[in-house]
Amino acid sequence: MAAQTVASTTNSVDLGPAAALSCRECGHRVPLGPVFACEECFGPLEIAYDYSAYETEELRKRIEAGPANIWRYAPLLPVPADVADKPNINPGWTPLVKADNLARELGVTGGLYIKDDSGNPTHSFKDRVVAQALEAARAFGFTTLSCSSTGNLAGAVGAAAARAGFRSCVFIPHDLEQGKVVMAAIYGGELVGIEGNYDDVNRFCSELIGDPAGEGWGFVNVNLRPYYAEGSKTLAYEICEQLGWKLPDQLVVPIASGSQLTKIDKGLQELIKLGLVEDKPYKIFGAQAEGCSPVSVAYKAGHDVVRPQKPNTIAKSLAIGNPADGPYVLDIARRTGGAVEDVNDEQVVEAIKLLARTEGIFAETAGGVTVGVAKKLIESGLLDPSLTTVVLNTGDGLKTLDAVAGTGLTATIRPNLDSFREAGLA
Amino acid sequence: MAAQTVASTTNSVDLGPAAALSCRECGHRVPLGPVFACEECFGPLEIAYDYSAYETEELRKRIEAGPANIWRYAPLLPVPADVADKPNINPGWTPLVKADNLARELGVTGGLYIKDDSGNPTHSFKDRVVAQALEAARAFGFTTLSCSSTGNLAGAVGAAAARAGFRSCVFIPHDLEQGKVVMAAIYGGELVGIEGNYDDVNRFCSELIGDPAGEGWGFVNVNLRPYYAEGSKTLAYEICEQLGWKLPDQLVVPIASGSQLTKIDKGLQELIKLGLVEDKPYKIFGAQAEGCSPVSVAYKAGHDVVRPQKPNTIAKSLAIGNPADGPYVLDIARRTGGAVEDVNDEQVVEAIKLLARTEGIFAETAGGVTVGVAKKLIESGLLDPSLTTVVLNTGDGLKTLDAVAGTGLTATIRPNLDSFREAGLA
Repeated sequence: MAAQTVASTTNSVDLGPAAALSCRECGHRVPLGPVFACEECFGPLEIAYDYSAYETEELRKRIEAGPANIWRYAPLLPVPADVADKPNINPGWTPLVKADNLARELGVTGGLYIKDDSGNPTHSFKDRVVAQALEAARAFGFTTLSCSSTGNLAGAVGAAAARAGFRSCVFIPHDLEQGKVVMAAIYGGELVGIEGNYDDVNRFCSELIGDPAGEGWGFVNVNLRPYYAEGSKTLAYEICEQLGWKLPDQLVVPIASGSQLTKIDKGLQELIKLGLVEDKPYKIFGAQAEGCSPVSVAYKAGHDVVRPQKPNTIAKSLAIGNPADGPYVLDIARRTGGAVEDVNDEQVVEAIKLLARTEGIFAETAGGVTVGVAKKLIESGLLDPSLTTVVLNTGDGLKTLDAVAGTGLTATIRPNLDSFREAGLA
Repeated sequence: MAAQTVASTTNSVDLGPAAALSCRECGHRVPLGPVFACEECFGPLEIAYDYSAYETEELRKRIEAGPANIWRYAPLLPVPADVADKPNINPGWTPLVKADNLARELGVTGGLYIKDDSGNPTHSFKDRVVAQALEAARAFGFTTLSCSSTGNLAGAVGAAAARAGFRSCVFIPHDLEQGKVVMAAIYGGELVGIEGNYDDVNRFCSELIGDPAGEGWGFVNVNLRPYYAEGSKTLAYEICEQLGWKLPDQLVVPIASGSQLTKIDKGLQELIKLGLVEDKPYKIFGAQAEGCSPVSVAYKAGHDVVRPQKPNTIAKSLAIGNPADGPYVLDIARRTGGAVEDVNDEQVVEAIKLLARTEGIFAETAGGVTVGVAKKLIESGLLDPSLTTVVLNTGDGLKTLDAVAGTGLTATIRPNLDSFREAGLA
């Protein structure tokens, strides 16, 4: 993953407004390529853009005339201008639901919205990031799309690779639940069980990337990570456009690696700089499950560094014990006047039911975490109920049915009216 | 459900362009109301519209400027003009996927598309029909939304009622699989298990509608059926608009009750009459599972009537043994030059995998039926591969995981490169 790899792959790369990779820590720049760590300081690389050609109202019109998916924001993403014509899974433009019933229950008066990403092609926000990684993989001439995963990501990679005609090879712990295996295997790519736990899977993937056997392989969340991560910016873009090109006052965002939260902040900042929204304060709140709350613990202790935890929570899609972007999340929460909070598994389940009962949205456990944290933050006074608030639901309840398995029939009756009346249903 | 009920409920009803209910058999007209059978001949009632005020290009612009859901077609549906401002689940505007990989495998050269309705709020096309029924329920002053169901419909009704602030009461057989119970129960409405089979559930619901205890209850697929059924027209509208206001040459549509297929035909006819698409021939093909193929059997035998079957297929969402709209389906298939075909359960599973492998779309068993039937129709020469063809996927694979439970790991390795190479994965 050294500079020479970059030099050999970037000459013909067209990724639209993406100008270079830039180190988040030291600012060192390298050409666009399949690298993710700074050669100077080992800091994370991210995309630097050239947006200088854009005139605000022209850009707004171009976006509004674009397709009903993330490619309406192609001018702001590391993708070629004709991306919408290429085979991809085209996620995004998911509903921003005005959650008036939930607002009443929580006492929010300033407008409460759920950004519901369960409508994406494989029903999680991962489709957004994988769609980006796929375009980078195409630009770099890769032919295999890969990842390590224990759930949502596996399905998103399998589906995107199938649509785009890539080979896919997804690595998972060999003893994953059968339901999750089916959801990943159905797309027909290689699905490789690794005899070991998720850490073993990740270690093996890193080894493979450095080996000739991994040549031509794009690991969406490793060597394509700088491109992949940019997909989360589209959540910020969509929220603002769906609010009528307005910034929300407060956002509640789940934290797994923390990447999504940092990219939402980046997206909001870009919209301000481009003049697409007015420059006004907003607060970003991070949400974790108590059983995997390293960022929340650090936030409350006033620390700048995040101490890893061993995850133990039903919110498995957020169960990253050593979140790479944890320190950046802490910085953003503090800088914007937000906070980081966590809820326990029981509160997660309660929040899933609360959201379903009030708004008809069946969220994954990660959505239970954000709704539960929003409730807790309102109760503790950290979230201002008089302000416009957006809570993210990043996945689908159908994928975490076990978490709410206790939910069942409210009555059982015989098929006649007497039995119906006896049950008090009339 | 007699005429006097109608008279007392329709004076203040605003359902947009819906002018009356009209009998499909004898043409007898009655005012809009919660009735579904003709008082003269017991034929099915459907909505008659007044579209006379529309100028074609003005209407087209109005639709194109509308929201990214079915309410963009509000001018053509039995809903008030301000429907988009009311709390509803807002389904529709789901992707029409250009399925080039699948086309290559099937030998289709004229353009093959999947209309993928798994992106709807509760991941099936039922959200379209329930959203309509909800607006009718609101117009008629109902306060409880109800249905009998064994699956997709229960979730759609629960979610819509929750969003709109209706009470919901869904009736299911008491011994339904636990996963399906959870998907229906999560929305917090009444979920009543009936000691009996699905026929018993339906019989009980009919009894309840005729009883004072059922007053104020809207059964989406019984006393609200004429409104409910219109939701399927939006599939036709979207397909044509997404093709650039063009009719497809061929459509492959699943058959359960047959209502969806007849309403798709109605929607296409309306677009022609309104001048929104050119008047040209199209063929509608019906798809069933062999284990519940009463319409297919009748079609092949040249019959006009449909002989009921006892369903036995994994495609449970299509398992209606006595399809009410069967004769109309036969008529449409014959009139348009289409056909009705069926595939067995093994072919359904193969087709689910084929669609996932080629296009990254994980379909419910009903989607396996349509894709499998499309394949069979091409092989038999009934479907012309040189013509533009749209195949419907009406549901989500996550809801019928059992059907593909055999899908699994392609390899298991130890976490090292030697094991990786031994498995032939390099």
